[in-house]
Amino acid sequence: MDEREALARLADTLPSAGDDCAVVGDRVLTTDMLHETTDFPAGVDRYTAGWRSVGASLSDVAAMGADAEAAVAAYGAPRFDPEEVEAFVRGARDVCEAVNAEYVGGDLDHHDEFTVATTALGATDDPVRRGGAERGDAVCVTGTVGRSAAAIEAFEDGDVDRGNDLFRFTPRVAAGVALRPYATAMMDSSDGLARSLHQLVEASNTSDLGMDITESYVPVDAAVDDLFADPEARRAAALFFGEDFELVFTLPSDAVEAAHEASPTPFSVIGNVTWDGVRMDGDPLPDRGYGHASDGEA
Amino acid sequence: MDEREALARLADTLPSAGDDCAVVGDRVLTTDMLHETTDFPAGVDRYTAGWRSVGASLSDVAAMGADAEAAVAAYGAPRFDPEEVEAFVRGARDVCEAVNAEYVGGDLDHHDEFTVATTALGATDDPVRRGGAERGDAVCVTGTVGRSAAAIEAFEDGDVDRGNDLFRFTPRVAAGVALRPYATAMMDSSDGLARSLHQLVEASNTSDLGMDITESYVPVDAAVDDLFADPEARRAAALFFGEDFELVFTLPSDAVEAAHEASPTPFSVIGNVTWDGVRMDGDPLPDRGYGHASDGEA
Repeated sequence: MDEREALARLADTLPSAGDDCAVVGDRVLTTDMLHETTDFPAGVDRYTAGWRSVGASLSDVAAMGADAEAAVAAYGAPRFDPEEVEAFVRGARDVCEAVNAEYVGGDLDHHDEFTVATTALGATDDPVRRGGAERGDAVCVTGTVGRSAAAIEAFEDGDVDRGNDLFRFTPRVAAGVALRPYATAMMDSSDGLARSLHQLVEASNTSDLGMDITESYVPVDAAVDDLFADPEARRAAALFFGEDFELVFTLPSDAVEAAHEASPTPFSVIGNVTWDGVRMDGDPLPDRGYGHASDGEA
Repeated sequence: MDEREALARLADTLPSAGDDCAVVGDRVLTTDMLHETTDFPAGVDRYTAGWRSVGASLSDVAAMGADAEAAVAAYGAPRFDPEEVEAFVRGARDVCEAVNAEYVGGDLDHHDEFTVATTALGATDDPVRRGGAERGDAVCVTGTVGRSAAAIEAFEDGDVDRGNDLFRFTPRVAAGVALRPYATAMMDSSDGLARSLHQLVEASNTSDLGMDITESYVPVDAAVDDLFADPEARRAAALFFGEDFELVFTLPSDAVEAAHEASPTPFSVIGNVTWDGVRMDGDPLPDRGYGHASDGEA
């Protein structure tokens, strides 16, 4: 079975499964494992690897609308090159500082393949779940989508500096906290925008819920236009590739203005919650995403 | 460089490094990465793997004298066999239940080698650090040492059931909480008893501190006598092999009786804090332990 089936099966046995973080009292907790073959293409430096892997867990904290408190990382590698380890820790610490969290250390493990497991801890009394979208809500996304797809393209083109720049991102913790009073449902876009929309619909447990989005409203990163010549590749980068760590969320339509004022990160309204599956410009939007990534369980 | 040097280097850059857990406000947080080659010898079933890997992080929580609240695990494997995944989760959940913690899920990742990263969260306002041993204190260890060395021997003998039984352990959370008011320093014995003693001495940052232990007071597990014929192999199993997850701690000598009454797990007084390095029966005890394991950073 693939991750999705396996996670669906696990969800039945785990009370807190099925959201970006597990909720433990007034804290949220999340873990992710990343490894070289699928997560760190050739060219990713260790500073970016530290930033990105810890950032992925901080993004899960953001998706609950929680303050980020701390993160730890377990670092597995065939050897411990001092400069690489230090660069990794610097990246991990810098991404924590960017969201006012503390990087509090980790574990080292001899491992044939470069592998990182990260955990983040957040705090909130009132987490935003995935399952609260209601018909009529606005469907929104922070920032821009497609940066990570563009980064992969840059790495393949040999433009390592640009790839690393695009691969680092600011976890949307401040936006998540600001949006918490307004959002009815929220998650991060790590599995891609299209799959995120499907997951929000599934999590609602409401029959006949859907989302209609408008392609021209999707905020595609400028790097996508720059690096992909083919329109179909551009569309795939924006809608399906994922790993962008933006927040995908729903808002009551009368809360959009207040949420815009509250959020330190701009967001786009890309559509509405409806009653008939996930559609884009009227056509069904496939539930396709970033296959190897976590399906979002805490 | 090996883990020890790398961790020592990291310790300079991380404020919370150098204990079993990182301290974050009134919470403690710890992560560990384990993998097939070195941590799960042939014969270890997935139930035991789930129990043991999550238990290792819960043991770090115990070593701070904290209540265990929750644990998560990231599970990396080449394929997701439903029975294996479910057995792993059952083991993870059962070890959490054994210490009144909640297993709250995790992440799945395609990985060539079976790899597990676990994280545990605990709560205490007053964690016990490694660095508080004082001259004259009693040196103590809970339970028995050598179980994991005996387990490896059982696996090598083909006695898989016994190996798995010996490989599961109850993290000493209840003992850690009960000992917290008395203990001056505490850690778990995951790197072996000898190395733990050296680490407690180093962490004290007191020049001319030492420990004198008496070999006949070391509580060697009955399985060690059973499975190792050679006296030198028995001694190595008890003193150096490690991975036993008992608590190694120091107590003011006038607190020993009260601590014995408070602790739900029996403990042995094996020696005293002195002024001249770590010795056993008067001879220097080598600082030798379980090389691949974490050096104990959170």
